[in-house]
Amino acid sequence: MDGTIPEKYMDLLTSKKAFAHLGTLMPDGSPQVTPVWCDYADGFVRINSAKGRQKDRNMRREPRVSLCVTDPENPYRYLELRGSIVEITETGADAHIDSLAKKYLGVDSYPYRQAAEIRVMYKIQVETSSGMG
Amino acid sequence: MDGTIPEKYMDLLTSKKAFAHLGTLMPDGSPQVTPVWCDYADGFVRINSAKGRQKDRNMRREPRVSLCVTDPENPYRYLELRGSIVEITETGADAHIDSLAKKYLGVDSYPYRQAAEIRVMYKIQVETSSGMG
Repeated sequence: MDGTIPEKYMDLLTSKKAFAHLGTLMPDGSPQVTPVWCDYADGFVRINSAKGRQKDRNMRREPRVSLCVTDPENPYRYLELRGSIVEITETGADAHIDSLAKKYLGVDSYPYRQAAEIRVMYKIQVETSSGMG
Repeated sequence: MDGTIPEKYMDLLTSKKAFAHLGTLMPDGSPQVTPVWCDYADGFVRINSAKGRQKDRNMRREPRVSLCVTDPENPYRYLELRGSIVEITETGADAHIDSLAKKYLGVDSYPYRQAAEIRVMYKIQVETSSGMG
């Protein structure tokens, strides 16, 4: 495994509505796993959350993450990656969640936005990756 | 959140062919996420792997794990749990992987068994859990 994502599995990050499961670290060092939407741009895997959520707090404290991205048509085909959060930004995060809503839900605007919510975009530098299936 | 799994989400561990994503800790403390089959018996969530795999080595060294179990009919409905591995055993592990193959594949015997493979069953004591969707 190295930081290069196998070309054969790039469809899971780009064209397919493939859910990812994000592993982060809790304050006590134990793992947390939650489902996220994701995409890929400029060499980074990108995810999106809202400020103050557990995974947001975890990634601000500890940049090391893991992601497992599963083919929606075949649960035995997936891409596993490990890497680090190299950028956390609110700039462009609203447009990013809208583009993820377009990808996953087929709508132009993220429909679950809450009034006081501040969206955050995270860029993951992939360090190791491997595909299965 | 406490160690009691909400009754409303128990179907994800029992009747549904719901895949789980398991978070373990690598030797350097970073998270790893991989898909697993799971079931529930005698108050424990149970998973199965083979001796020597990365997740097996991780769980033998560090018992703290996280699991996200997703409804196969609705990716926005899931159960998140965190807990600890309280038992790692080869006893009954072959019968257990066969019963998981029955649950997930509808076959009587696990079809992917490899010649030199030693199956291992892990019991997770749930410490916190919460459902979404």
